[in-house]
Amino acid sequence: MSEDSAVVDYHPMWEELGIDLPTHDALLSAVGQMYGDAFLTQENRPAGMSYLDFVMSEVHGLRVKELHDFRATGGKIVGTFCLYVPEEIVRAAGAWCVGLCAGAEFGYDEVERIMPRNTCALIKSFMGFELTNVCPYIKESDLIVGETTCDGKKKAYELLGEMQNVYVMELPQMKRPQDIAFYRAELDDFRAKVEELTGKALTAETLKASIKEVNDKRRALQRIAATRAASPAPISGKDALLATQVAFYDDVPRYTQMMNALADELEERVADGAGVAPAAAKRVLITGTPMALPNWKLHDIIEKSGGIVVGEEMCTGSRYYDTLVPEDGETVEEMFDALAAKYMDINCACFTPNQGRMDDIVRMAREYNADGVIDYALNFCATYQAEAFSVEKALQQAGIPIMKIDTDYSAEDIGQLSTRVEAFLEMI
Amino acid sequence: MSEDSAVVDYHPMWEELGIDLPTHDALLSAVGQMYGDAFLTQENRPAGMSYLDFVMSEVHGLRVKELHDFRATGGKIVGTFCLYVPEEIVRAAGAWCVGLCAGAEFGYDEVERIMPRNTCALIKSFMGFELTNVCPYIKESDLIVGETTCDGKKKAYELLGEMQNVYVMELPQMKRPQDIAFYRAELDDFRAKVEELTGKALTAETLKASIKEVNDKRRALQRIAATRAASPAPISGKDALLATQVAFYDDVPRYTQMMNALADELEERVADGAGVAPAAAKRVLITGTPMALPNWKLHDIIEKSGGIVVGEEMCTGSRYYDTLVPEDGETVEEMFDALAAKYMDINCACFTPNQGRMDDIVRMAREYNADGVIDYALNFCATYQAEAFSVEKALQQAGIPIMKIDTDYSAEDIGQLSTRVEAFLEMI
Repeated sequence: MSEDSAVVDYHPMWEELGIDLPTHDALLSAVGQMYGDAFLTQENRPAGMSYLDFVMSEVHGLRVKELHDFRATGGKIVGTFCLYVPEEIVRAAGAWCVGLCAGAEFGYDEVERIMPRNTCALIKSFMGFELTNVCPYIKESDLIVGETTCDGKKKAYELLGEMQNVYVMELPQMKRPQDIAFYRAELDDFRAKVEELTGKALTAETLKASIKEVNDKRRALQRIAATRAASPAPISGKDALLATQVAFYDDVPRYTQMMNALADELEERVADGAGVAPAAAKRVLITGTPMALPNWKLHDIIEKSGGIVVGEEMCTGSRYYDTLVPEDGETVEEMFDALAAKYMDINCACFTPNQGRMDDIVRMAREYNADGVIDYALNFCATYQAEAFSVEKALQQAGIPIMKIDTDYSAEDIGQLSTRVEAFLEMI
Repeated sequence: MSEDSAVVDYHPMWEELGIDLPTHDALLSAVGQMYGDAFLTQENRPAGMSYLDFVMSEVHGLRVKELHDFRATGGKIVGTFCLYVPEEIVRAAGAWCVGLCAGAEFGYDEVERIMPRNTCALIKSFMGFELTNVCPYIKESDLIVGETTCDGKKKAYELLGEMQNVYVMELPQMKRPQDIAFYRAELDDFRAKVEELTGKALTAETLKASIKEVNDKRRALQRIAATRAASPAPISGKDALLATQVAFYDDVPRYTQMMNALADELEERVADGAGVAPAAAKRVLITGTPMALPNWKLHDIIEKSGGIVVGEEMCTGSRYYDTLVPEDGETVEEMFDALAAKYMDINCACFTPNQGRMDDIVRMAREYNADGVIDYALNFCATYQAEAFSVEKALQQAGIPIMKIDTDYSAEDIGQLSTRVEAFLEMI
């Protein structure tokens, strides 16, 4: 992978994919500008971020071309929106996994013709990208895998299924033994689905390798996360968030290698007492709904207000990388059991009850030496908005300052949110 | 049951239950006035409605006293909010089932302190009744059984569980064989829970009797519903809706008897060509979210606008009574299998996909000779609001006029809705 590729013209490839070129050019330009404003204005960034800068400069370019070339040789792409779709199984059956576009306000007029206006931004976003033909990752997906994590997504996949090849995994709503067994059986069905797609059998050998590979990716992210407990923090929250966001769609071994290099650098910074923000900067843990690329809004507000984000208890954060799949399984059965146990250990607000998430937030606030927590929910996200009241209670009991923010992807409330965030940072 | 009991003063009983008496008096007065305005102003009502008038005049009185007396002799009450909690099992284990209050805007200020403002009216209502201590049925419930039908209720039960003895049944989100098996296993757990509550064993004999008893109740409602296909309709939609609403909390054999008497009368009316509305009145089928007592808003608007509601494809309608549990089971296992199959055959929008509901709506519109369909959703009900787009499409394809209404329990939009309904009735 050479930076020369940045000068390649991808328009012929996008055109071939059916992308709406003028609209897509406008989108890329807007994302590029957002990225410049939010990321490239930061001082003293780790050198290792240059890789992610490059990835972002090629956000619909080189990586899409890699997928395109992979498909040209018979490879298959599985598009996903959620942590509960195990990348290990996809890879072990010879396909590649890619997280789909869902982090920007786009095509809402079209979306609101087919779904309720009061749907969360994440869902409206992915439907908007689909309806306006601006997401090359959807176009490159041979199969899109949904899950029944919330009412909104569950119903959106029915609509998406009229436009794309969609398969829905059923996620249970509790975490009792029978629920884990149910999800475990879903994994068998999912395996069969992916094997059918690729025409390749998942074997104990391929699965063992993919578990190791995906664990390695998560381990690199754990290393980066661990450095954020230091004061001063060696990396901005924005950059760390970006690292996690890119984990969902970059080439796995390359990404892992680059993130380990970044972690090396961050560990050196910590050893040297070097950081990106003054040691006195107020440290914030964020919890809540996932922040899909290119949603950097809240981190940007906090860090432009002088705070530093030191952790994310989110699907684009600790929920993604905090736990690994045990690597000592030898048979497919053993490894599938381990996968089921690992994935069902993630504390999404779609589960009832979900006390584990409260415990995680309090633990993380302490581990990362946070001065306060911001609970972030997308408007109309019923599960996280409801759970925000339990989060508030748990943090108040633990004596940790907490602020709740409900928002969307628009820029309209940035001024108002900045005022609230500044007040919170002064208070904590 | 004598009408003399209407003069009994229930305040001492309510006080003993911990009801907030002044607030509760205000509530009962408001409901009484709503009832008078909506029901008692109707002309040419069936004589059989006098039973339901009496039930409503005693809405928190005589029936609560019956529960109270039952509990005084060791009986147990199971409060529910949803069709998917099988009354047959509750009764077979010696307890009584009662649907809980959820149809009026009450205590929202208190509710919004602990859950998101953008929660649907049904959930806010039951939490409001709980928080303001005005629901004697909650107070008389020894166990409240929730279900994971939607994100909002799933999270609300966590909060209700901090205040009451709450047990949550997990409902799957699809209808594949493994989902039915999962729900079937939930029924075993539920049986154990109710048996533990009552200290009585459910037997094949008690279950067979309760299946018959609840089927008889549904059969009576089927008879009433069938008469509504006639023109002129022999009963108003409002009165028919009330009949279904009362099914959730009245004494089962008595209610069945009275509803069969009403059905006899309606069948005679049909035979005589007698009805409650001019034969030319526009006939409307309503589909959508359940209308819990005392929510009569939409029916009232339609019928005061000169239309007649001829059916409800709702949980307080056909979804409740349209299918029966086969009565030929002999063992508990056989009967539990039959229960699982019956309940999983209900087409709630919480399922994905839910094509069965579209088919039901089109079929019912034809069977009841509806001139048009109104799809009714509570604001912030993600599943029904999303499905409204599929309903619209299915009806347009079938050539049946459709209007979508999103509303809540407040009176604020009655003027605006009346204008829309009048325009729809003129158009169809």
